[in-house]
Amino acid sequence: MKQLTILKIGGNLLDNQELLSDMLDNFAAIQGHKILIHGGGKIANVLMNQLGIQPKMINGRRITDEKTLEIVTMVYGGLINKNLVCSLQARGCNALGLTGADANVIPAVKRPVKDVDYGFVGDLDASKINTAILENMLSQGMVPVFAPLTHDGKGSMLNTNADTIASSVAISMAKLFQVKLVYCFEKKGVLSDPNNNDSVIAEINEKLYAGYKLQGTIHSGMIPKLDNAFDALKSGVSQIIICGPEAFKYQNPETGTTIHL
Amino acid sequence: MKQLTILKIGGNLLDNQELLSDMLDNFAAIQGHKILIHGGGKIANVLMNQLGIQPKMINGRRITDEKTLEIVTMVYGGLINKNLVCSLQARGCNALGLTGADANVIPAVKRPVKDVDYGFVGDLDASKINTAILENMLSQGMVPVFAPLTHDGKGSMLNTNADTIASSVAISMAKLFQVKLVYCFEKKGVLSDPNNNDSVIAEINEKLYAGYKLQGTIHSGMIPKLDNAFDALKSGVSQIIICGPEAFKYQNPETGTTIHL
Repeated sequence: MKQLTILKIGGNLLDNQELLSDMLDNFAAIQGHKILIHGGGKIANVLMNQLGIQPKMINGRRITDEKTLEIVTMVYGGLINKNLVCSLQARGCNALGLTGADANVIPAVKRPVKDVDYGFVGDLDASKINTAILENMLSQGMVPVFAPLTHDGKGSMLNTNADTIASSVAISMAKLFQVKLVYCFEKKGVLSDPNNNDSVIAEINEKLYAGYKLQGTIHSGMIPKLDNAFDALKSGVSQIIICGPEAFKYQNPETGTTIHL
Repeated sequence: MKQLTILKIGGNLLDNQELLSDMLDNFAAIQGHKILIHGGGKIANVLMNQLGIQPKMINGRRITDEKTLEIVTMVYGGLINKNLVCSLQARGCNALGLTGADANVIPAVKRPVKDVDYGFVGDLDASKINTAILENMLSQGMVPVFAPLTHDGKGSMLNTNADTIASSVAISMAKLFQVKLVYCFEKKGVLSDPNNNDSVIAEINEKLYAGYKLQGTIHSGMIPKLDNAFDALKSGVSQIIICGPEAFKYQNPETGTTIHL
């Protein structure tokens, strides 16, 4: 089976030009098929502040109203995505920028309103991802670069979590490729001591994960990330690594945290 | 030879939701291979005003400095392009948004500084357009939707005239397809009396064009448009039509101005 590397880079990396440049060098150097998925970063918030748009939050989560959707469509789908694409092109990597709307690669549904109306936010179903089109693009030597945006098929873009896009694309492509999914974020990996960036947990399996959660070693934002990772492994993804940009060496993936079932 | 329709829509149409919606209906209904190329519209200017960025003009032409490039990358490559893509998807048209940077489809060079430094503006060479990738996309049933942006291959996006992208893509694809190029703008066609929107000149050939220019009937902004059109015809494009959205019927193209050699 052909190999496919999927790299998700978080918003914090996008805000650090030096780290980003190093990481794009490393990404461009990866041999074989690959896909990049990027988060949002602070630029959308900066722009909203400049335009006097108040971010709406409920329980610490952003609500995507119509104005916010315009901003994230501009910033994620335009500024960040196209700058990553042309930066990769300059490194000899044949990047192609995509949102889920483009070629209907990732159809989604607007999140149903229950307790909270999140607004224009997309929920995914990995089984609906258009893997044939992605496979064709990869076979042509293209490198898809996804912005964290999908669409509802009715004419509206939808703001969508980049981690969810990464794990859903990884799951859907696992039918066709041996998929390695790498989450690259600001820490060196999953840490046993959040104040010590060198306390990287080298390997986590389901049993260890349950224990770490009980102890409180793994908590808050890391839990959905790891839940996503275990879901992806159970759905056929071969290998998952959580790592930081400093330790970002594909030849040396054990510098981050490797997730096993 | 397979047919390919290339439609360029101007900025003014993008600012009129009703006309735009009608035109997207018509575009989605075109049978066979097709490509959409869109201009900028007023949204970039509105955003620049809101952000307190002064548009820089020399001899009536916009200068694209670094800040302006960020804005047009956001607005053209993100907001306008993705909204067109998801609007076409809602009409059953498998749109794929592109800039020239994506898959390196349209490489360009930053315009050399002579009398004026236009900043981050791209100049094209139709012979360098990546026709194989566009042909593959079309053969997969995708409908490329181009924003007026290219890149320099060195990591920078470039602001690029949408008419030039349209004629260059038409010329390059004329090797592979029988190409019909349609410029759709706010008037009903090339007018003999600029104050009378019904005074459409049905056909223009080179000899008539020379006469109209001498008389001053055709002047200013229409001259580069027509020069582009004749260049495209001489380079193998089969048919060129300049028309307005009201008269926009592909089954009835004689409602606009048809350009012949």
